[in-house]
Order: sequence, then C-alpha cells, then structure tokens
Amino acid sequence: MNDFVFYNPTKIVFGKDKEQLIGQELKGFQIKKVLILYGKGSIKKTGLLDRVLNSLKEQDIQYVEFGGIQANPVVSQANKAKDLAKQEQVDAILAIGGGSVIDTAKSVSAAVQSGSDIWDYFSGKKITEALPVFTILTIAATGSEMNSIAVLTNDDLNLKFATGSPLLYPRVSILNPQLTFTVPQDQSAYGAIDAVAHILEPYFTQQTNIEMMSSYMENLCITIIRTSRIIHNEADDYNARAELMWAATQAFNGLTFNGVGPFSLPNHLIEHSLSALYGVAHGAGLAIVIPAWMKWHRQEKNKQFSRFAEKLFNVKSAEAGINELESWYKQLNCPTRLSEVNILEKDLDKIAQNLIDTLEYRKMPVSYTRENFIDILRLAL
Amino acid sequence: MNDFVFYNPTKIVFGKDKEQLIGQELKGFQIKKVLILYGKGSIKKTGLLDRVLNSLKEQDIQYVEFGGIQANPVVSQANKAKDLAKQEQVDAILAIGGGSVIDTAKSVSAAVQSGSDIWDYFSGKKITEALPVFTILTIAATGSEMNSIAVLTNDDLNLKFATGSPLLYPRVSILNPQLTFTVPQDQSAYGAIDAVAHILEPYFTQQTNIEMMSSYMENLCITIIRTSRIIHNEADDYNARAELMWAATQAFNGLTFNGVGPFSLPNHLIEHSLSALYGVAHGAGLAIVIPAWMKWHRQEKNKQFSRFAEKLFNVKSAEAGINELESWYKQLNCPTRLSEVNILEKDLDKIAQNLIDTLEYRKMPVSYTRENFIDILRLAL
Repeated sequence: MNDFVFYNPTKIVFGKDKEQLIGQELKGFQIKKVLILYGKGSIKKTGLLDRVLNSLKEQDIQYVEFGGIQANPVVSQANKAKDLAKQEQVDAILAIGGGSVIDTAKSVSAAVQSGSDIWDYFSGKKITEALPVFTILTIAATGSEMNSIAVLTNDDLNLKFATGSPLLYPRVSILNPQLTFTVPQDQSAYGAIDAVAHILEPYFTQQTNIEMMSSYMENLCITIIRTSRIIHNEADDYNARAELMWAATQAFNGLTFNGVGPFSLPNHLIEHSLSALYGVAHGAGLAIVIPAWMKWHRQEKNKQFSRFAEKLFNVKSAEAGINELESWYKQLNCPTRLSEVNILEKDLDKIAQNLIDTLEYRKMPVSYTRENFIDILRLAL
Repeated sequence: MNDFVFYNPTKIVFGKDKEQLIGQELKGFQIKKVLILYGKGSIKKTGLLDRVLNSLKEQDIQYVEFGGIQANPVVSQANKAKDLAKQEQVDAILAIGGGSVIDTAKSVSAAVQSGSDIWDYFSGKKITEALPVFTILTIAATGSEMNSIAVLTNDDLNLKFATGSPLLYPRVSILNPQLTFTVPQDQSAYGAIDAVAHILEPYFTQQTNIEMMSSYMENLCITIIRTSRIIHNEADDYNARAELMWAATQAFNGLTFNGVGPFSLPNHLIEHSLSALYGVAHGAGLAIVIPAWMKWHRQEKNKQFSRFAEKLFNVKSAEAGINELESWYKQLNCPTRLSEVNILEKDLDKIAQNLIDTLEYRKMPVSYTRENFIDILRLAL
C-alpha cells in the first residue's frame, strides 16, 4: 500500500427537498451576499431557483445572479462572472447545476480577491485564497461537488484542462436526487459514463493493486452501471437516482485513490481534446475513447482488464469485458465511435496535435507519442 | 435511501515514518504548545515518543506530557489531564495511542476552556468549544482517529458511554502501519474484532438496506477478517497492517452509515456494561456478546444474517454464518463465552441491572427489557 494523504472537508447534505436548507447553511458560515451561478435556465422552469431564493430571503442573505454557464465551460465566461463577483462584493459563490457550473464557481472563487485572469490559475499560478463555494447539485456526473478540482476550456487557445487546490473544496454541497429526475436522458447517461470513467482511470493505471481498494472501485462501478440502466427506463426512480448520485460523488472525491499510488487519466486527456475541438459532450467522448484506449492497451494490461471483465460483468476475458462496457454505453444510447459524432480519419492529426500541444503547455510527462494518440483514436473510428 | 448528512474534516496522513511530520502539521495550525497524552509507556520503549518530541522541537513547539492513560479510560484520569492542560495553557492536545488515549484527548479538549467536569459532557451538557486534537495512531481498532465520538467510563458510577460533537473530529491523524507491528497479538485481535463490530452494528440494525452500502460494509469486513488472519501469524506484514488500519478507520468514520437510516449499537451497549463492571477488554467483550445477540435475533433477522453468512464467509445459512464468525474469533485466540472471562450465570442480574441503569441515565429508548438482556447473556455463558 502506498503512502497517501486524504483530506475532504466538504459537508454533504443529502436527501429530498434539502435545497431549502441552503439559506441556513450559508448563514452558518456568516455569508451575507452570494453570487448565484447557473446554466441554461432549467432551474427557473422547474422552480428550483425560486425555492433557493426563498431560502436565502428567509435568512436575509443578499444575492446576485449570473446565468447561462455553458456545457464545457469556458474561461471567458468565468472571467465575466468573476468581474461581477468583485464588483458586487459577494462573500461566497453558490453553484446550482452540474460540473460545468460548479467548476466555473470554483474557478471564480479563486480569482475574485486577486482580480487575476482566471486562466492564470490553470497555467501555473498557485491558488492562495478563495471565496467559499456552496453547491446545489442537479446531475450525478463529475464529482466536482465534493472535490478540489475545476476543469475549464480556454476558448482562445482551445485547450481544456484542470486546476486544483484544497481551497476549492465546496464548504457545503446539497445533493437532492429528486432534482435529477428532469435531467434529459442523454445527459443522465453521460453523467453515469463520466462517473465510471473517474473510477476506471485509477483502476487501470494505478501503481499498486490493493484488494480492498479494487473491490471498493468495482462496487461503485457496479452501482453506477446498475442504477443508470434503471433510470434510463424510469427517470424518477428515487432510490436508483440516490444511489447513482452518491456513487458518482464517491467516484472522484479522493476515496478511490487512497494507497494505490500515482495514476494518470489518459482517457480524460484524450477526451478533453475532443471536447475542446469539436464540442463533444464529455460523457459521449469518454464512451468513444475508453474502449479504444483499452483495445490499444489490451495485451499489456490483460490481467487488470480480465479482473474488470469478471467483477463488473461476470465475463471471462478482457475482450469480453470491453464488449460489455461498449454494450452498456450503447444501451444508454451513447455513441461509441468517432464517426457517430462526425469526426473522421482526416481529423485525427489535428486531435493528436492538440494533445501534444496540451502536454507541452502543461509541461506534463509524455507517456504517449503523437503516433500513439493517432493509433488509439483510429481504434475509435 | 434515507436522507443523511456526511461531514468529516479530519486530514489523514497515512504511511511509513509519517509521525515525523507531526511538528509540521501542528505548525500548520499555528499550535505553540501541546499536551501529549499516551498510555502505559510502550511509546517510550519503541522510540516513538522520542521521534515525536524531535519533530516538535524542530518546529519550536512546546509540550507537556501526561502518560499512563488506561485501557477502558476513565473520567477521573481525563479530569486530571484537563487540569494540567488548563494550568499549562496548551492550545492543542496530541494523542499518541489507540482509542483509549484518543477518546481521553477528545474529552479533555472539550472541557479545557470551560474547566467543567468532563462527565458533564457525557451526561447532557452540549460541547460548544474544543481545543484542536491531533493523533498518532498506534493500533487499528476504534476508528476514533477519524470520528467525532469519545467513549469514557465514569469510575464512580460504573457507567461507560459515548459523547460526540463535530468539534471533536481530530484535525490531523497520522496513521503509520509500522507503529502497529509491536501491538501484542491479543490487542491486535481485539482491535480487528472491534472494527468489524462497528460495521456489523449498522449492517444488522439499519432501517434501509442499500445494495451499494451493504457491499461497501461487507468489503470492509472481509478486508479486516482477511488481514487480521495474516497478521496473527506475521505481525510485521506491512500491507496487511496497512489495509487493516485503513479499513478499521473507515469502519467508524461515518461512511458506512450514509443513507441507511437510523441504527443502533446494541452489542456495544451490552459490552460496555461488561467493561464497566468487570474490566473486560472491549474487543473480547464484543466477541462474547455478538454471537449471543445474533442467536437471540436469528429468526427475526434471518434474511440479513443469511446475506452476511454468504457474503463474508461463503456459507449458506444464518447459523453457519454465526459459527464462522465465532471461528474467526477463536482463530484469533479470543474468548467467545462469558465463562472464559470468569463471568457466571449468577452475575447476569447485575449486568442486566447495569444496562437498565445506563438506559435510564441516558434517557435512551428502551428496546430490550431486563429479561431480554438476561436471555441474550445466557446464550453467551
């Protein structure tokens, strides 16, 4: 077992109608004025925003709104939100939404006090202070509600990547599975696929296999696959939504990493280039990349892939396991080939170049060559 | 899935030689002077105390020592430590040891500022402030290193029970599996038995069975049983010690409770009376009580006991599962009958009376009558 540090101070308030407690939770941290971030406005249609505003009013908490955060969130938009936060002198950020909104909130929180360009904190500048972030989660997916990571796309450079700091842990995240009943079917699927990918990356690339940790990761994957199938047919199954939501949070809150040593996220790396260049939904991109990446690594990682096949799908070979994973993606109506998102062989060079640029920009250790990337992507055509 | 709140801000620093970081960790919290609590002095023999003191000196942190904390720790001793902490104006408590030392540290931390008698905080007074607690764990057992609970015995009243507050979470707990190599074999066994008991109590008494949570609990139990068998023969197997240590921490840090609804700890309740009246080691007491409690409940809880039997021991009936659990206790050379700790049928009345007194004193809902307690205990003779 490798050495590790585990620290995760986010308070999770989980259950029905819990968004009504947001005013109290903010009050508990002496928050007086909050910037509310949200996406395309579904929270207005569903009445969620009204319920939140009522809860704030009951506690005399002032607020200012910034809506319209886009999927695959971009730095230019985050900078605008940061300027508003600074101008309005808020003392906290409240994200209502999924990973895109939460990651924007975290990025804003890091830059309000300094006023710096947000991209600085993605390209080397250390985060040394941050406004407290609170979240009300509306989709089970990224795990951002209980981790210290934010992912943004630089829309000038077409680069998508992550930053992180212990200062970015949300203080409180409210998880009400009911809020996910109205998530469109494709988005629910992409969320589940993303959550499983967060587990599979360390599971497949970890330095040390530890029985307790491998079983824990398998249990989370099995839970997410099982419950995603239920809600694909029955969108408002509370218990399935609840298990899916809590499993997706655990998928990337640090618990799966403890003791397994260094690991990498090659599938996320590759997928981020698809998102940055072609606007592919993150979950869809992962469903395309992961089977190809597994096929490329099949011989070298045969032992771990075979275990994966048996534990998750009760089949006997690495190849059969990859097929089962693809079947799950297809059951959720998710694309599994680049051609299904209109990316063709002629585009592979450009994607590989973006990947090389990303590695160079981030000064990351290079574990794949341009040719490797093209070979992997060719298996996804 | 039931509603829940999960909040656990303890930072875990896990791995070889990590006790040498204690000075830095205290410095990170601006601690200037610390009360060091420890047990019977084994940390002097092993050199652990010297390493800790060196780490403190390197960071110019002052300290005062209070050694000799006894197993089944008592309020009278905790009050003396509290008086010393107050007199010496320390600003943190450092526990080096297992659950007894850590629980004493937490209890002291809650009472230093007010100067109140520590028992007040076990008999109704709310904990409203507490000095920060840091721990260096030397045995895998109670989980106190990452939870908000303290258990003490009132040595005047012969009552043993728990208090808790979010203020009691240790700020930092250092878990170095190497430190557990020298734990006596019986204590290692009792620690593993206690950790499994912490999982079995919610597993058997939870309101709602959730597949993800049941599998998580089973995985932890399987890990503890497997690794305890290894270290019983090979005391310095690092990986087994490490898995055991991290599993025992998770056994009672709140993660197993999420979403399962209200549960109770009847086996701990009964065992605490054995400890309070006869000084039985907590783990030994649990190994005596749990099989008896399971036999008493066998028909009513047949479904959950049968699942337990199959998942933990791969046997097909509740009865076979109870037998396997007893076999594990016996393999670890642990008593499984009251007679083995010199408690006889004539003593059962007195134990039942202590249990009734405890329930009344704590104003706890009564789920067992005096006759029920005697019947359960009779199955343990």
